[in-house]
Amino acid sequence: MGGDHAPVAILEGARGALTAYPDLFLHLVGDEARMAPILKHMGMARELIERTRIVHCASVVTMEDKATTILKEKKDASIRIAAQLVRDGQADGLVSMGHTGAAMVASMKEMGTLPGVDRPCLASVMPNLTGRPTVLLDVGANVDCKPEHIAQFAVMGAVYAEEVLGLPRPRVGVLSVGEEDGKGSATTKEAAQALRDLDLNFLGNAEGRDIWNGKFDVIACDGFVGNAILKSSEALAEGLLNGLTATFMENWFTRLGGFLAMPALRRFKKKLDYAEYGGAPLLGVKGITIIGHGRSNSHAVQSAIRAALTASEHRVNERILQSLARLLPESA
Amino acid sequence: MGGDHAPVAILEGARGALTAYPDLFLHLVGDEARMAPILKHMGMARELIERTRIVHCASVVTMEDKATTILKEKKDASIRIAAQLVRDGQADGLVSMGHTGAAMVASMKEMGTLPGVDRPCLASVMPNLTGRPTVLLDVGANVDCKPEHIAQFAVMGAVYAEEVLGLPRPRVGVLSVGEEDGKGSATTKEAAQALRDLDLNFLGNAEGRDIWNGKFDVIACDGFVGNAILKSSEALAEGLLNGLTATFMENWFTRLGGFLAMPALRRFKKKLDYAEYGGAPLLGVKGITIIGHGRSNSHAVQSAIRAALTASEHRVNERILQSLARLLPESA
Repeated sequence: MGGDHAPVAILEGARGALTAYPDLFLHLVGDEARMAPILKHMGMARELIERTRIVHCASVVTMEDKATTILKEKKDASIRIAAQLVRDGQADGLVSMGHTGAAMVASMKEMGTLPGVDRPCLASVMPNLTGRPTVLLDVGANVDCKPEHIAQFAVMGAVYAEEVLGLPRPRVGVLSVGEEDGKGSATTKEAAQALRDLDLNFLGNAEGRDIWNGKFDVIACDGFVGNAILKSSEALAEGLLNGLTATFMENWFTRLGGFLAMPALRRFKKKLDYAEYGGAPLLGVKGITIIGHGRSNSHAVQSAIRAALTASEHRVNERILQSLARLLPESA
Repeated sequence: MGGDHAPVAILEGARGALTAYPDLFLHLVGDEARMAPILKHMGMARELIERTRIVHCASVVTMEDKATTILKEKKDASIRIAAQLVRDGQADGLVSMGHTGAAMVASMKEMGTLPGVDRPCLASVMPNLTGRPTVLLDVGANVDCKPEHIAQFAVMGAVYAEEVLGLPRPRVGVLSVGEEDGKGSATTKEAAQALRDLDLNFLGNAEGRDIWNGKFDVIACDGFVGNAILKSSEALAEGLLNGLTATFMENWFTRLGGFLAMPALRRFKKKLDYAEYGGAPLLGVKGITIIGHGRSNSHAVQSAIRAALTASEHRVNERILQSLARLLPESA
């Protein structure tokens, strides 16, 4: 029920995913009265309908709600019911385009945390012009992280990058203020030291620019920093692209120019499209949670479902447990 | 001597500034053998030449050097000699397009720190599409900041925004992970609390997106966060604009399109041009230091000199001292 284009974009994305992935079964958690007519209108094939189940639930978390609303006022919100399906083993994973905080709280509360993980973290798959994304984590506002938290983020991010994004032997870094080992805060230096001793493809310190130049596949940081960078980057990229669009509307010359360049500009924008990568995984919970952007179109929804499916098929959580146990035995 | 286009761009910027500001006197600190022929070739008017003095100094910090090189290997580097001119009262301010770290170390070492300032900080004037810049500070990698440091950054940034950038009663925020007062790290919450009690136009928490939307004139943060955001933003904006340029070169249609839209695109790029704002001030030292981008062209150099001149004429340091004494009496 969540996201700017719900439930239409969600249901269209669901249909796309059911068509593309024959082993997929979907629980559609939300208001049946709103979903049923859309599903009917979409005219899904019987074969697809047989692989869905509507889990009716009228209560929905809105963007105006606090993340913790599901603990008090809206205990039966759709996001919480969906998390309970995972908790109870009825579903392998949860996909939401709604309230990020609520999806995190619901997942942590209902599924619980993997042993060895102190804090689950939200990973953002940042598209860049090299065509190979970089996973930045935590972006979910786990503030005041200790070194071992950041090291755990790095390990979980590496597993996700390898298993779900298909990046072999991912190059891992800790975000800092300079490349040299001596640069950084007390926390990042200790986190880097912990990772340096491990069996990871750890390249050392990453800088802010390395989020975009393809030098790293995974960059771990405190959730305060990651969240600030994510929000800043979204606003900057959007501002630039909007400003550019406005520029093309200035006069007839620029309009014609924009018209001629449009197909190429579309291809350019597509390279940067987060819709390809299927949303942000919440890593470290006992289950799979993928949180898409509120603006997700049906393509982004389908990608998010694919990410959850791949995470399940590749047993990401088993791999995370193994990696944490092998790599950070003291915290297991 | 510093910067990618030195000394030509520096000297051309110097000429521009001398022409524009009749009260300006410039000490040109650097290698006379390299500067003299360029000055000669530029054919400056006698009236301008009379307001300059070459301070010869052969040693230069390169981008490969460490910031601390001026303390050991290159004690007579031009940046250090320039800082000594300010220390000795021969100059009011220092402008450099060279090694940022070296300019910071030289200024702090030679000029010293203003009373009441625990840590000088580097402020970046971030251009945005609203046409009104936002000052982000610290971006100079003062890591592990305490709440009082961030509060001091905010106070100094507000003085700079008002006196040098001409933004009346600047709107000040502390960078956090959510707008609500309860959101943030232990450090940012305490910094915000300290600022809330003061006679500032303090709006509370700012988020990453607020660097670009014009809601705040000054945003204070730990240097780790500010540095990561600055480097990330530079790389993202550059990547987007370069990718766009490449897009226009794809085929003859796009080339024609780009050609038609070029004047408008240039105006658009100019809005985002940091060259207008004259570089990053190092605030909190006993003197004025403006550090420009290494890529500065002559226009950016002239803007940086103007910023130093304005800071001196508006007695920014006196204002900072007053504000810190009035606003943060316990640290004065």
